[in-house]
Amino acid sequence: MAKYTKRSEDYSKWYNEVIERAGLAEHSDVRGCMVIKPYGYAIWENMKSVLDAKFKETGHSNAYFPLFIPKSYLNKEAQHVEGFAKECAVVTHYRLKNSENGDLIVDPDAKLEEELIVRPTSETIIWNSFKSWIQSYRDLPLKINQWANVVRWEMRTRLFLRTAEFLWQEGHTAHSTKEEAISEAEQMLHVYADFAEDYMGMPVVKGFKTASERFAGADETYCIEAMMQDGKALQAGTSHFLGQNFAKAFDVKYADKEGKLEHVWATSWGVSTRLIGGLIMTHSDDEGLVLPPKLAPIQVAIVPIYKTAEQLEAISEKVAVLKSELLKKGISVKFDNDDNRRPGWKFAEYEAKGVPVRVAIGPRDLENNKAEVARRDTKTKEVVDWDGISTHIEALLSEIQDNLLNKAKEFRTQNTSSVDSYDEFKKVLEEKGGFISAHWDGSSETENKIKEETKATIRCIPLAAKEEAGKCIYTGKPSSKRVLFAKAY
Amino acid sequence: MAKYTKRSEDYSKWYNEVIERAGLAEHSDVRGCMVIKPYGYAIWENMKSVLDAKFKETGHSNAYFPLFIPKSYLNKEAQHVEGFAKECAVVTHYRLKNSENGDLIVDPDAKLEEELIVRPTSETIIWNSFKSWIQSYRDLPLKINQWANVVRWEMRTRLFLRTAEFLWQEGHTAHSTKEEAISEAEQMLHVYADFAEDYMGMPVVKGFKTASERFAGADETYCIEAMMQDGKALQAGTSHFLGQNFAKAFDVKYADKEGKLEHVWATSWGVSTRLIGGLIMTHSDDEGLVLPPKLAPIQVAIVPIYKTAEQLEAISEKVAVLKSELLKKGISVKFDNDDNRRPGWKFAEYEAKGVPVRVAIGPRDLENNKAEVARRDTKTKEVVDWDGISTHIEALLSEIQDNLLNKAKEFRTQNTSSVDSYDEFKKVLEEKGGFISAHWDGSSETENKIKEETKATIRCIPLAAKEEAGKCIYTGKPSSKRVLFAKAY
Repeated sequence: MAKYTKRSEDYSKWYNEVIERAGLAEHSDVRGCMVIKPYGYAIWENMKSVLDAKFKETGHSNAYFPLFIPKSYLNKEAQHVEGFAKECAVVTHYRLKNSENGDLIVDPDAKLEEELIVRPTSETIIWNSFKSWIQSYRDLPLKINQWANVVRWEMRTRLFLRTAEFLWQEGHTAHSTKEEAISEAEQMLHVYADFAEDYMGMPVVKGFKTASERFAGADETYCIEAMMQDGKALQAGTSHFLGQNFAKAFDVKYADKEGKLEHVWATSWGVSTRLIGGLIMTHSDDEGLVLPPKLAPIQVAIVPIYKTAEQLEAISEKVAVLKSELLKKGISVKFDNDDNRRPGWKFAEYEAKGVPVRVAIGPRDLENNKAEVARRDTKTKEVVDWDGISTHIEALLSEIQDNLLNKAKEFRTQNTSSVDSYDEFKKVLEEKGGFISAHWDGSSETENKIKEETKATIRCIPLAAKEEAGKCIYTGKPSSKRVLFAKAY
Repeated sequence: MAKYTKRSEDYSKWYNEVIERAGLAEHSDVRGCMVIKPYGYAIWENMKSVLDAKFKETGHSNAYFPLFIPKSYLNKEAQHVEGFAKECAVVTHYRLKNSENGDLIVDPDAKLEEELIVRPTSETIIWNSFKSWIQSYRDLPLKINQWANVVRWEMRTRLFLRTAEFLWQEGHTAHSTKEEAISEAEQMLHVYADFAEDYMGMPVVKGFKTASERFAGADETYCIEAMMQDGKALQAGTSHFLGQNFAKAFDVKYADKEGKLEHVWATSWGVSTRLIGGLIMTHSDDEGLVLPPKLAPIQVAIVPIYKTAEQLEAISEKVAVLKSELLKKGISVKFDNDDNRRPGWKFAEYEAKGVPVRVAIGPRDLENNKAEVARRDTKTKEVVDWDGISTHIEALLSEIQDNLLNKAKEFRTQNTSSVDSYDEFKKVLEEKGGFISAHWDGSSETENKIKEETKATIRCIPLAAKEEAGKCIYTGKPSSKRVLFAKAY
């Protein structure tokens, strides 16, 4: 198999090769829409299942709302329409017909009275329902989540990171008080951050977005930002405190215990298939995909090495026991006894697919009661006693999971700089990249100028940022906190 | 709470009331699109989880394909376009803008070169991918499933049964031989039938569709047909043997072991949120929803009856033990200690929601170490010893599951008739309804005439139909098998 483009040579090309060879996804003929292939979708299923359980534990219920949003709904929240009307798929007709020359054309007689937008996000259609679902304090809090596809007409697309159609979950909640809504938005941010670190092995910085980077219609946007191996930031999830904006736009009020009518307070929050892009770019290496065990569709691949049918049979018998032991431990295993492929091909395949642990067993291993165990993350191998091998593998998977997170943390530490002047800022950005912690005067004007001049944006104002007197690197005006700059996806 | 409309008075009105009061779904402002509310969606999640496991056990992998289909794809399979072009949502533009007077309008400068269809089913977009996924016999069989939303522009819609947008799964497989493809289509029909009986408690007749009722693009359509309580048939799932139609339309060939190129053979199969409509109509009664335990989001509801905080505390302590015992058995429980609602309100609520078992426990029960256990299906109650109550409930849930299936089977038996003349056919259809087993000459012409005259259609040619010499009830021509007629949803 041809070598991969090196990350250091062309990061973007490398990224596409990793996706292609692992069989994760591909572009479709429909501009901007991707096909998520079975192996890529299996990662998404694993992510979904962990996140869904976390949402339910925190009191949310799933529901499903229409794909289509009447054009007029989008127009009800002033900022929201600004943010989403410019890049949306518009349904104008409901029928095709054959023209006189036999071509299939849009039937002009089947024009919709009001155009429908394919949802770019569902605040408007959901708040239209909430209006009838919420009457009194008894109906609150209302905590809904939806797993769905959404469409935003993106001009430049990249698999997983930016696609016209993508899969996501969107939480939408309504509360009787401002405080409760803010605490919900923060809670979900922590859920996302914990998921990123504990399952994806991807450390994130939790923070607030600046006013200019907020979700269209939010009073406050919280985010988690991760660092990719090229030093660029990836916004991996957002959680919005929506104030009473949508409640007012859709006139959603509740009667409190005294019967007084008040607008409710809202949040929304989402993560998408973009997370898969982040997962790929956090851990993979110049030999292809590397997956953290907790999200790997196949955690252990077992490859038999044999020449005769008797040898394969002897190996299969032994492996059957190991397989059932591993399955009992909740570990997913694939015993690859496909006779059409050679062991070398299989080794390359599981390397490309980022399978955390590979076990190889041949006739000599049978004799010695041993097997070769290889780990994908460090690319190291060892010969292990067969007795107790399932316990060994279980511990190894846990070690790999920890190692990936620690490595990513170390990388982030090494690539995070603190600077105190604009010259230093530009120098670090150009020579080293990564996250840059610096003082900023809090104005959108300064933010935009730095962005225009350097392409770096304020990724967030970290929740953990300490009060520290300083001067804005651009204007010299006073600042009380450092914010995080980076170039971003 | 007001009484429900009786099934015998207005079946359709009753159906809508059951859905509304159970909180399953509602119409949205978008014509034909429903909102699936949390309780209805929880049923769908339970269905999905069982079906998904069955698909995986039978060797299928999930994937995800684009929502949009280029208009030209639809046109590639001649029958397919006939079946689906007449009722589809067409995306023609990708941007809105503000007009001079401030209205939000479609931007005429953002017209798509080729219109996109919101998928009514995904054969065309999937087979376009299969073309690059399939090269040799090593790539076969290819067995893919997708969970997705689809849109068919229906003029008359009914919650769950017929909606413009609905949720479903669609399996798409490719095989090297005709026999293997047929056996796959049959296997998935059996998977559906087993699910309907074992989980939904809904007996089904497995059969072939007649040529005129086949899926647009199929060589053979298999189906499962269930009987609703008004005697009408509901097509609950279909599985199609697609021959080489899509392989030819999209030029998908594989090289066999000798290197010879052949078109592959295909199937597709699907069930949708329509199943929820079938579930409702099979078991529910004039007091609302009745759910089979295996798919009920809440299997057991426990209602405390108390006047003082001490009483509630004593009840809560006891219930905590029961709850953990039930959870250990995999039984979902809700202990409803909401102080804002009275026990009577809660009883009505769980009745309307079809919760299979309700436990009530008050101060006297505490003294006697007993509790009242009520089952939703038979509306019977008994006072049960607290010791061993979790085992009692477990057995009861299994009994309820069996009872619902048996009741539905008995109903179907009572409402299935066998007739030998057209007069008898019309009499039975009018006076009794239900399924009618009769001889038919095999022609579409006869089928259509019977349909026009009586509104009854051939639901299927049962797989289990025995060879039996007879005469078509309409033309008197010879027939070798009885087919199943009914009015249908």
